[in-house]
Amino acid sequence: MNPTSALVVIGNEILSGRTQDANIRFLAQELGQIGAPLREVRIIPDVRETIVATLTEMKARYEQVFTTGGIGPTHDDITAACVAETFGVPLELHAESAARLKAHYGTDRFTDARQRMAMLPRGATPIENTASIAPGFSIGNVHVLAGVPTIMQAMFKAVAPKLKHGAPITSRTWHALGLYESAIATPLEAVQTRFPGLDIGSYPFKESEERRGVALVAKGADENEVKQAAEQIRALIEAAGATPLEGEPAN
Amino acid sequence: MNPTSALVVIGNEILSGRTQDANIRFLAQELGQIGAPLREVRIIPDVRETIVATLTEMKARYEQVFTTGGIGPTHDDITAACVAETFGVPLELHAESAARLKAHYGTDRFTDARQRMAMLPRGATPIENTASIAPGFSIGNVHVLAGVPTIMQAMFKAVAPKLKHGAPITSRTWHALGLYESAIATPLEAVQTRFPGLDIGSYPFKESEERRGVALVAKGADENEVKQAAEQIRALIEAAGATPLEGEPAN
Repeated sequence: MNPTSALVVIGNEILSGRTQDANIRFLAQELGQIGAPLREVRIIPDVRETIVATLTEMKARYEQVFTTGGIGPTHDDITAACVAETFGVPLELHAESAARLKAHYGTDRFTDARQRMAMLPRGATPIENTASIAPGFSIGNVHVLAGVPTIMQAMFKAVAPKLKHGAPITSRTWHALGLYESAIATPLEAVQTRFPGLDIGSYPFKESEERRGVALVAKGADENEVKQAAEQIRALIEAAGATPLEGEPAN
Repeated sequence: MNPTSALVVIGNEILSGRTQDANIRFLAQELGQIGAPLREVRIIPDVRETIVATLTEMKARYEQVFTTGGIGPTHDDITAACVAETFGVPLELHAESAARLKAHYGTDRFTDARQRMAMLPRGATPIENTASIAPGFSIGNVHVLAGVPTIMQAMFKAVAPKLKHGAPITSRTWHALGLYESAIATPLEAVQTRFPGLDIGSYPFKESEERRGVALVAKGADENEVKQAAEQIRALIEAAGATPLEGEPAN
């Protein structure tokens, strides 16, 4: 069995629609590649009780949990304090991180606000990264990442070698122009029944009024089964009188 | 108090990273405008137990709940059945929707797979819309929308007049190039303290190596308070020696 992952996005700015999330898809793809697929995402506001309750539930339910957002120096950056509360440990100055921040900013500019960024839950391990001085950190099965995509990505790359890995999730896709889902629903369900360990998905697409159709995806950790299922999908598209095209549609 | 909304995204394709979500931000913005802001989003897989458990929890916790995805004709489209189970009612052929689908496709092409799309929980009201024949529907405080963005948007527009409304959420934003969050963290927290009913947010941005800074946002249902808080934010940016620019940064 593949280890399971979950993501908690801490961010009023996503819930208000101010910001288009750019982290979920990145993490979904990376976690699929290391074979620890994303099983659930929750987007929650910057509210202490909500963050603690969500993390408590998620860290018990999934083998590894990621958070994004809320680790900067301002009043709305409360992730570290909430993670400490979740684990029942104090939030305290992390000497090594403080020293690094101080060296970077200089003693004069190592303000209280910046010192806040070196406050970590007791027992946490900072996630070293080249994009930012402000540390992400890991504690137990929870990995705390930045919300800014470039920094989040650097932190993920840094922590990836320490994560639980499984067989990589692979997928194969066929698509067909002019094909309707309802025309292949029955034989497609039969493919799913023959390969219960795979996810067989059907996704209508519309590149334009003329170029519409459906993309059919076989996905799972058993590469050989994925290959066989994809061959059956190719055949059922042909049987429906359409032309199977390999891969995703252009849009 | 504003009514609360939550969104359940039902979609393996988002969790696998195949698809970039394009519905969350749209719903977040629309729900803010009608004053029923989005308080939580959950992205979950196409798994019956997970969908039912999530909907049961969310419909009790929030005043209105939206779902996207899983209402087409294929085996992985199980949203309607799960909503029926959540409400403890049977899934049955909705006569009016079936008649509409039959008229659209013609009797010969109204296949079993297409008939599936007319199966609704008993007591559900279809969401009429111009983009699709397949019906979304409302039952209790749960509104079931399509996953395809154009169709989802048409369905939301159709159901919007029936939703709970509150005072619209408004926001004002100032940004400043070259300003660091840590330089304004203390006075910004003071603004939050003076306006406990608002969300005061701080968001670093980076358009390029040279053009980086921070965007500061005041947001809430009291337009007058938002205006006052925004004025104080403008002043604290100036006090930090930077130039306040109205609105969001270009990127």
